[in-house]
Amino acid sequence: MIKVLVAGFKGKMGATATKMVLDHEDFELVGVLDPFEEKNHLNELAEYKGSDVPIFKNKKEVVSVKPDVWIDFTIPAVAYENTRFAIENHISPVVGTTGLTEEQLSELTTLSKELKVGGLIAPNFAVGAVLMMQFAQKAAAYFPDVEIIELHHDNKLDAPSGTALKTAEMMSEVRQKKTQGHQEEKELLAGARGADFDGMKIHSVRLPGLIAHQQVQFGGVGEGLTIRHDSYDRSSFMTGVALGCEKVIHLDKLVYGLENLL
Amino acid sequence: MIKVLVAGFKGKMGATATKMVLDHEDFELVGVLDPFEEKNHLNELAEYKGSDVPIFKNKKEVVSVKPDVWIDFTIPAVAYENTRFAIENHISPVVGTTGLTEEQLSELTTLSKELKVGGLIAPNFAVGAVLMMQFAQKAAAYFPDVEIIELHHDNKLDAPSGTALKTAEMMSEVRQKKTQGHQEEKELLAGARGADFDGMKIHSVRLPGLIAHQQVQFGGVGEGLTIRHDSYDRSSFMTGVALGCEKVIHLDKLVYGLENLL
Amino acid sequence: MIKVLVAGFKGKMGATATKMVLDHEDFELVGVLDPFEEKNHLNELAEYKGSDVPIFKNKKEVVSVKPDVWIDFTIPAVAYENTRFAIENHISPVVGTTGLTEEQLSELTTLSKELKVGGLIAPNFAVGAVLMMQFAQKAAAYFPDVEIIELHHDNKLDAPSGTALKTAEMMSEVRQKKTQGHQEEKELLAGARGADFDGMKIHSVRLPGLIAHQQVQFGGVGEGLTIRHDSYDRSSFMTGVALGCEKVIHLDKLVYGLENLL
Amino acid sequence: MIKVLVAGFKGKMGATATKMVLDHEDFELVGVLDPFEEKNHLNELAEYKGSDVPIFKNKKEVVSVKPDVWIDFTIPAVAYENTRFAIENHISPVVGTTGLTEEQLSELTTLSKELKVGGLIAPNFAVGAVLMMQFAQKAAAYFPDVEIIELHHDNKLDAPSGTALKTAEMMSEVRQKKTQGHQEEKELLAGARGADFDGMKIHSVRLPGLIAHQQVQFGGVGEGLTIRHDSYDRSSFMTGVALGCEKVIHLDKLVYGLENLL
Repeated sequence: MIKVLVAGFKGKMGATATKMVLDHEDFELVGVLDPFEEKNHLNELAEYKGSDVPIFKNKKEVVSVKPDVWIDFTIPAVAYENTRFAIENHISPVVGTTGLTEEQLSELTTLSKELKVGGLIAPNFAVGAVLMMQFAQKAAAYFPDVEIIELHHDNKLDAPSGTALKTAEMMSEVRQKKTQGHQEEKELLAGARGADFDGMKIHSVRLPGLIAHQQVQFGGVGEGLTIRHDSYDRSSFMTGVALGCEKVIHLDKLVYGLENLL
Repeated sequence: MIKVLVAGFKGKMGATATKMVLDHEDFELVGVLDPFEEKNHLNELAEYKGSDVPIFKNKKEVVSVKPDVWIDFTIPAVAYENTRFAIENHISPVVGTTGLTEEQLSELTTLSKELKVGGLIAPNFAVGAVLMMQFAQKAAAYFPDVEIIELHHDNKLDAPSGTALKTAEMMSEVRQKKTQGHQEEKELLAGARGADFDGMKIHSVRLPGLIAHQQVQFGGVGEGLTIRHDSYDRSSFMTGVALGCEKVIHLDKLVYGLENLL
Repeated sequence: MIKVLVAGFKGKMGATATKMVLDHEDFELVGVLDPFEEKNHLNELAEYKGSDVPIFKNKKEVVSVKPDVWIDFTIPAVAYENTRFAIENHISPVVGTTGLTEEQLSELTTLSKELKVGGLIAPNFAVGAVLMMQFAQKAAAYFPDVEIIELHHDNKLDAPSGTALKTAEMMSEVRQKKTQGHQEEKELLAGARGADFDGMKIHSVRLPGLIAHQQVQFGGVGEGLTIRHDSYDRSSFMTGVALGCEKVIHLDKLVYGLENLL
Repeated sequence: MIKVLVAGFKGKMGATATKMVLDHEDFELVGVLDPFEEKNHLNELAEYKGSDVPIFKNKKEVVSVKPDVWIDFTIPAVAYENTRFAIENHISPVVGTTGLTEEQLSELTTLSKELKVGGLIAPNFAVGAVLMMQFAQKAAAYFPDVEIIELHHDNKLDAPSGTALKTAEMMSEVRQKKTQGHQEEKELLAGARGADFDGMKIHSVRLPGLIAHQQVQFGGVGEGLTIRHDSYDRSSFMTGVALGCEKVIHLDKLVYGLENLL
């Protein structure tokens, strides 16, 4: 059993993480942390009936329950202090809080190496999305002909999506340069062939009902290879948080980005 | 058994049609027509061993075998004369030759009505493609949010495809006007949101390996409806030719377009 | 503006319908009905701030606001009485309550014809799902080779889904009988070729993350036609309720099943 | 420029390989080998006008043109002798001939190590199919919930396909054991839930029009990941042969299976 603490357990992400830890058969929730919570135990809160877990107000108290892993979904200023504290106390941090500065990341990484404490800071915990990007990058080395179709709900303002752009960048690092399509192709209606990114095409579909989907489609002589990720709701990041908790205790330094654990 | 004659049996389409008629259990091939063929019977040609069917050089000879249906894959000038002759002789024409003029079509239709002879002239015999367009049109009456993704091999010069434009036109006739996507959406890369057709979006994908594919994707609150047609090779039009042969003998005039038989 | 009343406005479906009516630019909510609600106006309830709409306790009071349409999401016993009352008062019912008996349906239909009052009773208001089934049925007349792949979350107990079975039944009515696949095909692992329904194959996929999806896939010589419906959440039925409200006022009798309005 | 020889240049695969080498800008075709061909140069054959390349009748003559790579699409008995001869003469073999015995493979591998000659023997050169299997295996380590849908033309006798079984085996090596679907799920029609392979489900679709397609579909909380390969015709293997030619000259032994080069 891996002993886990959750800091920021009252926020949306932190609450979901707390429930995941409670439900996971390999994890034991040894405490949660929130300086502004008045109750002393989780089971005093309506949604946690039956979970006799201490609520700490001060991070120094946490050491008493000897956590192996410190999950952090707080705010940037707090996350930096928390992560530093966790490493100093040989607790492996798994941090989903975004907004840490380059300097902070660099300093925390150095500290983790000195103390040989494993940890993970990740802006994105969606395992499926990370695998999609890794697979797309690998395939792009063999199939330079590729187009991205990303599909989102119609309240999204930007096109293409950040994930599409990141995928295209990753493929661009390994892909043989070429401009796809026939050299003399013509758009009868402007925009039909999509956006151009380094010779690859990106198409953004926006429809009500959709959530967040991306399809990376490769073509070769007589064959096609397609990699698709569908995100149906925000709970999808929990597979990645659980994976992080299992992996960090075997590391000897802090890593940045879930992709480095896959 | 429906008695069928094939005019233009030596061309690519005509040859495929000839084989289809020979293989179809409800059809009897009673003759083929080509003014420049020297042999007298199909079985004298290498690819038709065992098919003892007369080859006619002159269309007037055709009447002797009393065909019910006249399949025509010739050239425009010949097709017009052939179709006129067929109607006058109460043989139902199924014409895949393209290039007849409006005047010719109008005149042939009038003649067919006078003589009460059914027939079909169609630029496109792909049943699946026609159904896709009909379904898309019907769905567009209920779901105004729709995008077309059409995918073709990378030797195609034009984007969007003719089928995509025709589908969009058909949907436009019944669709409640609206511009899809968020009113303030922004393209970070030009073309990401595709081509605009009357507020609908069309995306053209071009990749080696692909043949001819189209996906019409509708979105509504909490749901999606997708209609897709895949064309893998040119043989796909034969389902439509066979259907035409079965239907025309029950009609009392010439119709234009396979969609009017479905 | 169509004047709408909602009976059963406090249940899950009724509450969603109430919000839909409030948001729809062609509808005016003229009242809601619940015999056990103590408040007198919607705006006295937390979730309806700003909606000054009367809450009726007794269905007889409803007449005073002259609704055109009566949406009903109550319970069977109540729904029968409500629908009868609505018809007698020339208010067109749109009923989503399930469980009415054959006798009740028959009696209500007769009454509606006598009084020439349009109405709709439907067990399923998902427009996209109904269109998918209609399109599948139409295509099955031309393409006897068809397989259904239905995909649901992994808490679903039954396989195939009710929608898959209904779709297969509808296709079976028009499809030329045939057993798909090669006559000598062999299953190396039992079940690989799926369930058999009248010669057609049905495959049930169950995975976490999925909600409710169905793909009807047709094959012909050189081509394929696919019709897919994705249901992402329960709100998807509201498109159908709104459609029902718009259509019933132009009918002169009660119809059963949304498919009869499409 | 890599100098390439093709043995078995008159067979279907060998002829396609010969054309690929002639067209590829990084390859020079220095000769072809066939003991029974009477002509002396490729350009004496109708389909190779303009290609002044020697046709060798005896493998010993090949050494004179100093090939770097020896492509072999012959028959097993010949392929073994050819591969042995190539290695002994420090020419890297790329062998697509199937049917070599375990002993032969083992002996050739040992020889290649002694002489430090790189080479490739592969039963399957479809890069896309190999990548699909590799990606599926990697994803199965994180997503134990997975189903395979494989789709083929309706002349295929066996279900599931060999590729589906191989994919399932590869996933099984790394996947956390579990039986998918609800523990109490019931098949209303036998076979609906597909074939079982170690707790995973496999569904085989057979339709006219299709060629060879496979979709590996993973589900996790709130998300899905899908990997799909479409094979449209047999030319798809040439991407892999070209890749083999580029890679083997940098190896110092014979490898078996294209997957070991990706």
